[in-house]
Amino acid sequence: MMMMTMFVFSNIKRISRHSLRRYLSGMEKQKIGIIGSGAVGTFFGLRLAEAGHEVRFLASRQQKKIPSSLALESWQGNYILENPKIYETTKKLIDSGENLDWILFCLKSTVFDEYNSEEEETQFIKDLLEPCVDKKKTRIQILMNGLGVEEKLAKVFSPEKIFGGLVYGGLSKKENTIIHQGVPVEIRGGSFLDVKSEIEHAKQLWKSTPYIQYSPQECLLQAQYSKLAWNIPFNGLTIVAGGVDVSQVWGKTNPDDQHVQHSDASILLRQSALGLMQEIVQLANADLKAQSKSAEFFLNSDHLISILSAITDKMAQASYIPSTTQDFLSNRPMEINSIFAEPLARAQALHIPVPRLELLVGLLCSIRNSQK
Amino acid sequence: MMMMTMFVFSNIKRISRHSLRRYLSGMEKQKIGIIGSGAVGTFFGLRLAEAGHEVRFLASRQQKKIPSSLALESWQGNYILENPKIYETTKKLIDSGENLDWILFCLKSTVFDEYNSEEEETQFIKDLLEPCVDKKKTRIQILMNGLGVEEKLAKVFSPEKIFGGLVYGGLSKKENTIIHQGVPVEIRGGSFLDVKSEIEHAKQLWKSTPYIQYSPQECLLQAQYSKLAWNIPFNGLTIVAGGVDVSQVWGKTNPDDQHVQHSDASILLRQSALGLMQEIVQLANADLKAQSKSAEFFLNSDHLISILSAITDKMAQASYIPSTTQDFLSNRPMEINSIFAEPLARAQALHIPVPRLELLVGLLCSIRNSQK
Repeated sequence: MMMMTMFVFSNIKRISRHSLRRYLSGMEKQKIGIIGSGAVGTFFGLRLAEAGHEVRFLASRQQKKIPSSLALESWQGNYILENPKIYETTKKLIDSGENLDWILFCLKSTVFDEYNSEEEETQFIKDLLEPCVDKKKTRIQILMNGLGVEEKLAKVFSPEKIFGGLVYGGLSKKENTIIHQGVPVEIRGGSFLDVKSEIEHAKQLWKSTPYIQYSPQECLLQAQYSKLAWNIPFNGLTIVAGGVDVSQVWGKTNPDDQHVQHSDASILLRQSALGLMQEIVQLANADLKAQSKSAEFFLNSDHLISILSAITDKMAQASYIPSTTQDFLSNRPMEINSIFAEPLARAQALHIPVPRLELLVGLLCSIRNSQK
Repeated sequence: MMMMTMFVFSNIKRISRHSLRRYLSGMEKQKIGIIGSGAVGTFFGLRLAEAGHEVRFLASRQQKKIPSSLALESWQGNYILENPKIYETTKKLIDSGENLDWILFCLKSTVFDEYNSEEEETQFIKDLLEPCVDKKKTRIQILMNGLGVEEKLAKVFSPEKIFGGLVYGGLSKKENTIIHQGVPVEIRGGSFLDVKSEIEHAKQLWKSTPYIQYSPQECLLQAQYSKLAWNIPFNGLTIVAGGVDVSQVWGKTNPDDQHVQHSDASILLRQSALGLMQEIVQLANADLKAQSKSAEFFLNSDHLISILSAITDKMAQASYIPSTTQDFLSNRPMEINSIFAEPLARAQALHIPVPRLELLVGLLCSIRNSQK
């Protein structure tokens, strides 16, 4: 449930090549294709390459020149991959011979925004992925924000080979270098169909690098809604309040006197953020029920809100700006459909009243229209 | 209930001085003080001067030079008042001798924003108004947006001498000229205590000019909420959606095919506008009940929403920008407290859930903070 993992990998901050190799024992070298060359895809590709796997990257469409190295600057130790295997098409990811064991699918969800129908979307997925996917063998680990990407891929590929995962921990990209500072990176990962034996494969893969905390989720959808219960209020409200940091929505706790410092705006926006969390919990539980998930996975509103509130207190101290808000401020495409519009569509289909979410999505769409 | 009065004063478009004087028969010349020299105060002052009353204006604090004339450009006929009586203090409004019969109180409600307590506010009202108010005689007609100004004045002056009024019809100011175009001006006026015999005095006053439609309201609070049910969604949402016109929130009806044209944003914002109307109706009825108003004055949600929707359809065709949104776009102070925050405070006191209003006010306050 934790947004920023607070535990510390104290024993792995400095790890020798010798000890790193130990992590590979018990698992054969995997052939891994990375689709999406942003901070997330490149980071995980580098960590897996460092652990000894054969990693092949798909070049981004904007990339004019294939770099001669990819680098990682991390508080847990730097890493440079010389002569990375970067290819211009997904067909070339397997041209060397054997099929891929894994694909990490790490595009920004706005990649789907340019398609006007499900058919167009499906065609895009086929054109992009079919050349490098062996339907019997290749597992696809999605590492993207929001809801609904697993469903899109499950229309084309074996649903039991599809994995979802939520990334926690700050990563940023500067040219060919990924910068990772401050908190350990965690993947809350699950299998799209919640197949236990399949999650074991993902656990094996991620166990090969000590720098990634892989937390297997018995119910992927529950994990996704748990993250949305934070992302929807805070990525959303910080944008529509004008592109502010979390403290402007949540108020700032003064560590000296332990009294909460609020303006009128943040008192009301904090209430709205809490109200949005309630709406997401109600939606989550209705969706989990509709998808026949066990009641043990239903979210407990008080418990989740108290955890998320504690995390947000810390973020407000650090003037944290959520990722979608950073996109907004940099005039980049915002992940509105997967984080906000897809949950709203599910609420409408399930007849769950979400007045705040409806208003929020209306404003975000309006802001997106005016950005174009 | 109508926002833009649709009837036409066809018989008064061109009125002779002779026939105008007839309107004065049956009422003695009144001594009238105008507090607030914006479009509203100046317009009504000029119309009453034209009708033969003695009108004295309070100069605005920003006014450096007293103008030698005030003018009115109207589709119903122009009017110029030469050598208007404009004074720098309210004491001077009565220095000529007799007390005032009426005061028109037409300040922008943001005038109260600079005071931090009820005491400070009350002191401001005393300093401003006491010099020109005879508590036994002078009636005070408030013509301001939102809720709560009558209550503020009733702490200082006889509540039965206080009148509220809602102005409908487009007025703008350009230097010393008021421009009035297109629709007849209507005041929906009531007595603060809903005293029938007092409303008769207001009716008499406004009957003296044919250019103002005075619609007496048996229940002032009902009339105020009826207007707020439009102003809150549309002044509010057009601001937080980025300073847009009504059609961006409501969608635009295409007059050719009679099909409603919407973007995703306006479909959702239209739903939110309708949801806000519902919240205001629920709040209105709880407040009317709490203030022991007769149930006959409770708002009927379906009826009110259908009237407001029809009016909004016309405004969306004309790309109408609400007054608060014009203030926002011009970086002028916005009437957030009286139009939005006071209704929210009443909803909180009455325990009426208003999730959309709470979110809207939070965003408006945040936008106001960033404007400063």
